[in-house]
Amino acid sequence: MLVRLTVPTKRRSQLEDVTERVQQVVASSGVDEGVCYLFVPHTTAGVTINEAADPAVVHDMLNYLDELVPTEASFLHAEGNSDAHIKAALVGHSAALPIEGGALVLGTWQGIYLAEFDGPRPRTVMVKVVAG
Amino acid sequence: MLVRLTVPTKRRSQLEDVTERVQQVVASSGVDEGVCYLFVPHTTAGVTINEAADPAVVHDMLNYLDELVPTEASFLHAEGNSDAHIKAALVGHSAALPIEGGALVLGTWQGIYLAEFDGPRPRTVMVKVVAG
Amino acid sequence: MLVRLTVPTKRRSQLEDVTERVQQVVASSGVDEGVCYLFVPHTTAGVTINEAADPAVVHDMLNYLDELVPTEASFLHAEGNSDAHIKAALVGHSAALPIEGGALVLGTWQGIYLAEFDGPRPRTVMVKVVAG
Repeated sequence: MLVRLTVPTKRRSQLEDVTERVQQVVASSGVDEGVCYLFVPHTTAGVTINEAADPAVVHDMLNYLDELVPTEASFLHAEGNSDAHIKAALVGHSAALPIEGGALVLGTWQGIYLAEFDGPRPRTVMVKVVAG
Repeated sequence: MLVRLTVPTKRRSQLEDVTERVQQVVASSGVDEGVCYLFVPHTTAGVTINEAADPAVVHDMLNYLDELVPTEASFLHAEGNSDAHIKAALVGHSAALPIEGGALVLGTWQGIYLAEFDGPRPRTVMVKVVAG
Repeated sequence: MLVRLTVPTKRRSQLEDVTERVQQVVASSGVDEGVCYLFVPHTTAGVTINEAADPAVVHDMLNYLDELVPTEASFLHAEGNSDAHIKAALVGHSAALPIEGGALVLGTWQGIYLAEFDGPRPRTVMVKVVAG
């Protein structure tokens, strides 16, 4: 079953923590051992894993991505969001995480984030849980 | 079953749209619900998802990656393609996409691209479809 | 079954080749056709695929990532490793590789690397093999 989480974002660039919601999908699935797939069906947003403990990490990452790929760089695409397409491609749109004992196996400091680069918008994170 | 798509590229840097061909592999598999895995067995090419509507997006992405990692930067590797290795690693070599109703679930604007960074060459995109 | 490989690293930035160890996990699993999932449960390390033939490629990649995201850039996070979080997110934390004939299907030049960006430390690479 493919579960669609709706994730509203509030700023142009934002990492929105969805760890708890993904864990709930895994718990509801009743799968004990398997794989949890995450997929973001957008071209200016992606999915990433990063530290969930200190908010400064998320801040530094967004800030530095803006330095690497500035919004106002010279682009051809007329919508003014080419930087967002590039950032999303660098971060990626899919991930596969292991499930053990009925829960996602994440590292101590890991959180799962929707990576918004052209918000604010309502976004979707697709979650699929497969036993195996 | 692992299907190998042959993808000839025409330029040194190129995003080649393979969406239709991957959709055909999914359709032929007869799998209704499952996961489609993409894998690129090269070190100077990868696989990425990006906007398929406006070609300017692809142009901007390739151009900007060339600015971020210039071909002529000072590298040790003697073949003159270190930039291509780095770009491919940033974009990534594998992806997992959900299948629903016998078709890939892609966002409205999403296309699947072989990301060539050291062409022109014949390249391979591996596609695996698993029910689940 | 989820296998945890312990990978000690020796430098702050390092690509440690784990290809042989992952191939052994695949061989021991007895799975003939399927998918091998790799997952790194850290926020300052990731997993990547790159050329295993010429060590200069790995050297160039680490060097250039240091130029793109310098350790001493101005960051908020007080631990002094924000660059490592960003590099790990760019490289990614998970990958899915096809298995055929009881072995990983890798390209001729491909190797699998734990990508360390804040070592030296003992690190973990999780490997999961699923038939299908």
